[in-house]
Amino acid sequence: MIIDRLFDSVRQKGVVCLGLDTAPEYVPPHVVAESGGDIAGAVFAFNRAVIDATLDVTACYKIQIAYYEALGLRGLEAYAKTLRYIRERGGIAIADIKRGDIAETAAMYARAHFTGDFEADMVTLSPYMGMDSLEPYAAYFQGGEKGCFVLARTSNPGARDIQYLDTASGGKVYEAVCQRIAAFGGPFIGRCGYSCVGAVMGCTNTEEIGRIRKQTPSVFFLIPGFGAQGGRAADVALYLNGGNGGVVNSSRAILLNYRKYADGERRYAEYARAEAVSMNVRIAGAITDGV
Amino acid sequence: MIIDRLFDSVRQKGVVCLGLDTAPEYVPPHVVAESGGDIAGAVFAFNRAVIDATLDVTACYKIQIAYYEALGLRGLEAYAKTLRYIRERGGIAIADIKRGDIAETAAMYARAHFTGDFEADMVTLSPYMGMDSLEPYAAYFQGGEKGCFVLARTSNPGARDIQYLDTASGGKVYEAVCQRIAAFGGPFIGRCGYSCVGAVMGCTNTEEIGRIRKQTPSVFFLIPGFGAQGGRAADVALYLNGGNGGVVNSSRAILLNYRKYADGERRYAEYARAEAVSMNVRIAGAITDGV
Repeated sequence: MIIDRLFDSVRQKGVVCLGLDTAPEYVPPHVVAESGGDIAGAVFAFNRAVIDATLDVTACYKIQIAYYEALGLRGLEAYAKTLRYIRERGGIAIADIKRGDIAETAAMYARAHFTGDFEADMVTLSPYMGMDSLEPYAAYFQGGEKGCFVLARTSNPGARDIQYLDTASGGKVYEAVCQRIAAFGGPFIGRCGYSCVGAVMGCTNTEEIGRIRKQTPSVFFLIPGFGAQGGRAADVALYLNGGNGGVVNSSRAILLNYRKYADGERRYAEYARAEAVSMNVRIAGAITDGV
Repeated sequence: MIIDRLFDSVRQKGVVCLGLDTAPEYVPPHVVAESGGDIAGAVFAFNRAVIDATLDVTACYKIQIAYYEALGLRGLEAYAKTLRYIRERGGIAIADIKRGDIAETAAMYARAHFTGDFEADMVTLSPYMGMDSLEPYAAYFQGGEKGCFVLARTSNPGARDIQYLDTASGGKVYEAVCQRIAAFGGPFIGRCGYSCVGAVMGCTNTEEIGRIRKQTPSVFFLIPGFGAQGGRAADVALYLNGGNGGVVNSSRAILLNYRKYADGERRYAEYARAEAVSMNVRIAGAITDGV
């Protein structure tokens, strides 16, 4: 099952999920020049070099489709090529699409992102329209090759607007969402003990995380908010079970690490690798400290 | 402002929002043959003929991007061409994308869907990540040419899972969302009295709609759920203020009306028009009955 592959990948390579949110301005000028000025082509060339340099030190890649949509049709070509390249090289590709729509439409999104040009291993989904909006994806989970992460609690300040509303039955909206995610994922639990239906769980608010981790033991977490958004290694450690059961996303800190160095533009991929390794070490250290 | 254009369009052409959720199997075989077997090309040819036949009897078009994503890169080319064609012909194009993501990413989505290859007049958005996930779109509302519809209450059965959770302060989650939509849209109200920030408000549950219509007088509704999902003309009438303040989406009932007729395949566009006209008449009748 895909979740077993991801679990094993975390064990072997660490918890880093490398976010390929590659804005055109991230790409060094010489890469753009080598692509003949083709921005979308340059974005793919940049991604490919970063993937080559990080495959053995990142659990998985998360590709934020918005950055590619913003470049139009050519951007989506770069998106498709990035997904294909990760999967050809044996990596795990998470399409960060946050789709959420009624059943018939969800079936179309599932086809779009689990087959064909845009095939990914896992996708992110939004729960606002309810659990029937997630069901069409389950047909793909049954085969064991695909999975998803459903938004539960995100790492942006606005998360409080809806996700933190108190419900009449006691908990917050995001907790009700967590319960539904756990129930929905019940039939898709791998040998690692986690389900192919995971949750997006931001690490910028850590108060209740111990309780949530216990209440949803089979839910694997995709954890955004590390670094730029304020999440620290010690926070992240609370979301993991002895270093697994979650992956921690980082995008800009890794992709733009090269800007700290005089020779960075030429060696951007090596510096991306260095930051991924450093992040793995920092988080592993926090987990050891917490034991 | 775009909302004034939409308001005027409803007054002149009726409340129908034609949903171009064009699945390949909707397209008659002779259209596929004429496109040399190119499915995505055939989808666009079908859309173009339907648009030509309905421009003067539909308030706007809603294009469900999932159906195009499911066809991969070629499908998104058909999507881009459909949007461009509607706008070239003077129609109003609503991109049904239901995007919702953190601010930096939302800025990318706004660029993707308000400029370039995929430029639409309005987009649908999901509120789950909070109001900061909507803000980047507002930069485009200020110019007056763009607008959005934020998911409030949808028409699928699963809407009850999250949207209908009772909050500790009394109302339901979707009512809290409505209040936030109205507040967010306050600065973007046109001369028609409605805001460029509208709400998706399904017509399959009509209990509280009178109250909601009164509580959010400046929020224009995009109303799904008519026909196939159970919404009736009398229900829809409750969502409108004397026939305006909302558009009513219909997709399959219009696109597939031709299947009821022996000569339908050749005259699919005319039959689409006939159903749009009939729907306008039925809803207008229900509004008159209700006065």
